[in-house]
Amino acid sequence: MPNYTKKDFPTHNVRRFLEPGPIVLVSSEHKGETNIMTMGWHMVMEFQPSLVGCIISSANHSFEMIRKSRQCVINIPTEDIATTVVKIGNSSGRDIDKFAEFGLTAAPGTHVRAPLIAECYANFECRLVDASQVKKYNMFIFEVVKAHVATAPKVPKTIHYRGDGEFMISGANTSRYRRLFRPEML
Amino acid sequence: MPNYTKKDFPTHNVRRFLEPGPIVLVSSEHKGETNIMTMGWHMVMEFQPSLVGCIISSANHSFEMIRKSRQCVINIPTEDIATTVVKIGNSSGRDIDKFAEFGLTAAPGTHVRAPLIAECYANFECRLVDASQVKKYNMFIFEVVKAHVATAPKVPKTIHYRGDGEFMISGANTSRYRRLFRPEML
Repeated sequence: MPNYTKKDFPTHNVRRFLEPGPIVLVSSEHKGETNIMTMGWHMVMEFQPSLVGCIISSANHSFEMIRKSRQCVINIPTEDIATTVVKIGNSSGRDIDKFAEFGLTAAPGTHVRAPLIAECYANFECRLVDASQVKKYNMFIFEVVKAHVATAPKVPKTIHYRGDGEFMISGANTSRYRRLFRPEML
Repeated sequence: MPNYTKKDFPTHNVRRFLEPGPIVLVSSEHKGETNIMTMGWHMVMEFQPSLVGCIISSANHSFEMIRKSRQCVINIPTEDIATTVVKIGNSSGRDIDKFAEFGLTAAPGTHVRAPLIAECYANFECRLVDASQVKKYNMFIFEVVKAHVATAPKVPKTIHYRGDGEFMISGANTSRYRRLFRPEML
């Protein structure tokens, strides 16, 4: 299991880790119970406030926990725990305590009661700021109120889901196109 | 420039290409004018109907073209045209005809007037089905009504934006975790 040292990270820049499209783990807490789910359908919506839109199927045990507690943590797992990520997606918090079952460490957050997953590269503490699209689309709009990111490596090896049981593993990072960018377009 | 042969692809399965989180090119048409923009903030919202949520800044020339024409094409570019993708994001349709400027081929769609970009690996013809979140979040909810995907390669080498002028290039594809998935969770 990875063991990261983390630093505070500016919330307006969490797009650095979310925009490339990794699978994330969403941890939640409601009335003393915790849970974890895997999630692939999410997008950055705004820099500041730092908004992230997420689709959470109402079939998930996490759905009501997050809807009622109005908070969660978005955690970024890396390739070294891919097997655990799949197993988390294959099981339900109705049946098991996922932190215990998968040997993950629930670390306390600073702004929400939902626990951070210590073994993930980054943890974004989120408050549900707009539930107006939950009924129609299962869409939750969260504000990232606190971000914790590992000090190393600089770029995480993330896992990206393709459906049908296939993953893409993040490849090379490149700044070779950087000189082409107009600064205001970065 | 790549030269793809394409086949019809089931619209409910476009998540195969969108869920890993690539930068996409959005092409549009309004009153005889065409345009292209780069976009990194998008997510799959539903399989069927095939829904995709997108954030399009109102600063973009494409914003009003898409809002008024209520359609667009989401195109998936690959690494071989990354330089063009950056240049498209650095320029405005107010000033130039992007298809002409960047030597791209506007191919006709079957369901929308917005042109497909032939040099992209996949093209998803979209209708704007919900504009209710445009004012508050610049969020457009599109239905993919027709999908065209290259017959080869099986997996495209996509580009994923990290901000600050850095890209992640898609890495290895793996089915090694497939046996862990419960079939209904795929």
